[in-house]
Amino acid sequence: MAEHVYKKIEIVGSSPNGFEEAVQNALGRAKKTIRNMRWFEVSETRGYIDDGKIAHWQVTLKIGFTLDD
Amino acid sequence: MAEHVYKKIEIVGSSPNGFEEAVQNALGRAKKTIRNMRWFEVSETRGYIDDGKIAHWQVTLKIGFTLDD
Amino acid sequence: MAEHVYKKIEIVGSSPNGFEEAVQNALGRAKKTIRNMRWFEVSETRGYIDDGKIAHWQVTLKIGFTLDD
Amino acid sequence: MAEHVYKKIEIVGSSPNGFEEAVQNALGRAKKTIRNMRWFEVSETRGYIDDGKIAHWQVTLKIGFTLDD
Amino acid sequence: MAEHVYKKIEIVGSSPNGFEEAVQNALGRAKKTIRNMRWFEVSETRGYIDDGKIAHWQVTLKIGFTLDD
Amino acid sequence: MAEHVYKKIEIVGSSPNGFEEAVQNALGRAKKTIRNMRWFEVSETRGYIDDGKIAHWQVTLKIGFTLDD
Amino acid sequence: MAEHVYKKIEIVGSSPNGFEEAVQNALGRAKKTIRNMRWFEVSETRGYIDDGKIAHWQVTLKIGFTLDD
Amino acid sequence: MAEHVYKKIEIVGSSPNGFEEAVQNALGRAKKTIRNMRWFEVSETRGYIDDGKIAHWQVTLKIGFTLDD
Amino acid sequence: MAEHVYKKIEIVGSSPNGFEEAVQNALGRAKKTIRNMRWFEVSETRGYIDDGKIAHWQVTLKIGFTLDD
Amino acid sequence: MAEHVYKKIEIVGSSPNGFEEAVQNALGRAKKTIRNMRWFEVSETRGYIDDGKIAHWQVTLKIGFTLDD
Amino acid sequence: MAEHVYKKIEIVGSSPNGFEEAVQNALGRAKKTIRNMRWFEVSETRGYIDDGKIAHWQVTLKIGFTLDD
Amino acid sequence: MAEHVYKKIEIVGSSPNGFEEAVQNALGRAKKTIRNMRWFEVSETRGYIDDGKIAHWQVTLKIGFTLDD
Repeated sequence: MAEHVYKKIEIVGSSPNGFEEAVQNALGRAKKTIRNMRWFEVSETRGYIDDGKIAHWQVTLKIGFTLDD
Repeated sequence: MAEHVYKKIEIVGSSPNGFEEAVQNALGRAKKTIRNMRWFEVSETRGYIDDGKIAHWQVTLKIGFTLDD
Repeated sequence: MAEHVYKKIEIVGSSPNGFEEAVQNALGRAKKTIRNMRWFEVSETRGYIDDGKIAHWQVTLKIGFTLDD
Repeated sequence: MAEHVYKKIEIVGSSPNGFEEAVQNALGRAKKTIRNMRWFEVSETRGYIDDGKIAHWQVTLKIGFTLDD
Repeated sequence: MAEHVYKKIEIVGSSPNGFEEAVQNALGRAKKTIRNMRWFEVSETRGYIDDGKIAHWQVTLKIGFTLDD
Repeated sequence: MAEHVYKKIEIVGSSPNGFEEAVQNALGRAKKTIRNMRWFEVSETRGYIDDGKIAHWQVTLKIGFTLDD
Repeated sequence: MAEHVYKKIEIVGSSPNGFEEAVQNALGRAKKTIRNMRWFEVSETRGYIDDGKIAHWQVTLKIGFTLDD
Repeated sequence: MAEHVYKKIEIVGSSPNGFEEAVQNALGRAKKTIRNMRWFEVSETRGYIDDGKIAHWQVTLKIGFTLDD
Repeated sequence: MAEHVYKKIEIVGSSPNGFEEAVQNALGRAKKTIRNMRWFEVSETRGYIDDGKIAHWQVTLKIGFTLDD
Repeated sequence: MAEHVYKKIEIVGSSPNGFEEAVQNALGRAKKTIRNMRWFEVSETRGYIDDGKIAHWQVTLKIGFTLDD
Repeated sequence: MAEHVYKKIEIVGSSPNGFEEAVQNALGRAKKTIRNMRWFEVSETRGYIDDGKIAHWQVTLKIGFTLDD
Repeated sequence: MAEHVYKKIEIVGSSPNGFEEAVQNALGRAKKTIRNMRWFEVSETRGYIDDGKIAHWQVTLKIGFTLDD
């Protein structure tokens, strides 16, 4: 465990419904191509506005995953 | 589109019910006087505590809007 | 009021259910030993991933409380 | 109280006499046009030098005020 | 001079042609409504891409101007 | 000396009279329970405003003190 | 649109001729392998000096692009 | 596991011999009074110089530990 | 040389033995799939603690490498 | 004026009496060897504590001065 | 090469004509007294405004140069 | 002691052998021309890579030293 090596990538997820769903959408897309995701860190939270309301949230994450040997 | 100019202002929204509602309250108040709001960026999330519980959330946003010509 | 002194401590709360519940869990634990909590500031939002889904959210807070005289 | 919305603006105050007076000058000017100022945050402290001495201090503040409904 | 008070606002300028023109477009729009602009500070430089090329630059500035007495 | 271990805590002091007195009030309260305080670092300076004037300054400090063996 | 997921990568472009050309060189290289690039953010601007003159500019960008479903 | 609450404290360790030993000295002192330490984060690395050589290293850590229920 | 383009990736290396070995383990793993690595930048140093001692160091690096034409 | 070149140096001033005097002491010492100082920027404010009181303030400044042609 | 020692200094260059010329003016002045300049890093970009137009750009650089043995 | 004035300079040390030796090389070179060095602060740790291995470490320090009266 103590010698694992991880890679961190930066992904932006969106959702019309909220902050947490934007994170989940980012992870849902990332898991199609990345195995062994371990943690995420939120680095930026923003959103787009249409007619004075939130059209969609947009959350930037760093995702850490184990590199296979 | 490529020559739009935007202004960004900083607004703090509050809500006893949660993070997202604090953002929505900020936008709801801002739209009374600002037309053409395009995006927001969350810059600070905090809250006030009463008797050990969250009394209200307080979220600081930057809001970007198009300046009319 | 103007001469109050506050202490700020740093607490990390977790929850499998979401961002806000992680904050509430941090405060719920802190109130067992701290009186007079007044505000919190979110300083870091992250989470752990299991099988491509969020296993739990983990939110770091600074909590400010009044020091009794 | 819990649903107040605030606006934050950035003002730079100057004074030949010191740091605190520069803050007071900023607030004194701001109150001519802004009602309901609630708090300020110092974001930058600098000064101009003439003949090896401080000619004037210059302090940048963010000022938060309640938006009327 | 030593007791001037300034306000700083945040403006985003765009240009299809380059970084400096985006700054100039921001100032050109701002001067329609603001007198006595004194300085600007670049806080963010970004751009939008279309078909692998820069469609337009987008530069965020803080602009400082003297408040009239 | 070379193997001392220190702890740093975060304290917020207030004063209606000024920046330096807010720091002194923080230290005055902290010394009731902490021995061997060695240094402080100012991390945030703000204040509350009442009727357009500074009601009280509020200064956040980190205080370092030697841990007894 | 509201549920798009983006990836952000970090690329460093160089040019002997200037800041903007360094950005364009970065994008020109990136587009050989990345489709659907949408925006970039400049995170660092530096350069190498030879005989007292700029030998080449070196600009670090984050590039955001849409992940295909 | 998912509902653990942690506290983070800030400790400064010193050593005449090197960076890693300064970290170990900080942890060695902290474990006298803290159970269940889980992780540390280095936030500042500095040192004191005597006669042109490093007299001792001084490393600031945040240490996270589980709060017992 | 002046028109090279580089990519930067973020890798986390671990080691039970120390800071430098954690960096070396990160590079050792990265070189299995990346050619032409040129430099690294340490962005975060942390570690995990077991029974009051460092179980393993964990160092986050950005690694820059030349993109082949 | 528009083609002036400035150098910025970093100086730490101390005073037992207060924040502003620490700045003045830094400038007083700097003017012995530097001509044409124009401005300063406060980058760090700290102090040393003796017997629970401020022994001396210590303020870090950047000082900008015109380079003679 | 591997044991070179560099010094970094901070210089502010100005130009009425643009961002890149301000950098070049800083380097042009610095080379009068510094040999072996190797690289620069832009740390701040700002400008002064006259009558609504850019009077001059002002760019702050760190310049690294080899110290002779 | 309380009225000492210090200057801080920025030096980059290199070493093929490790982080600590890079710091020592920086100090060893600096002491040839600077008397009364008191402390250092590590601000950046990086390294150059050759054939997948660390060719040399490169550590940026700020060094504080007393200015003689």
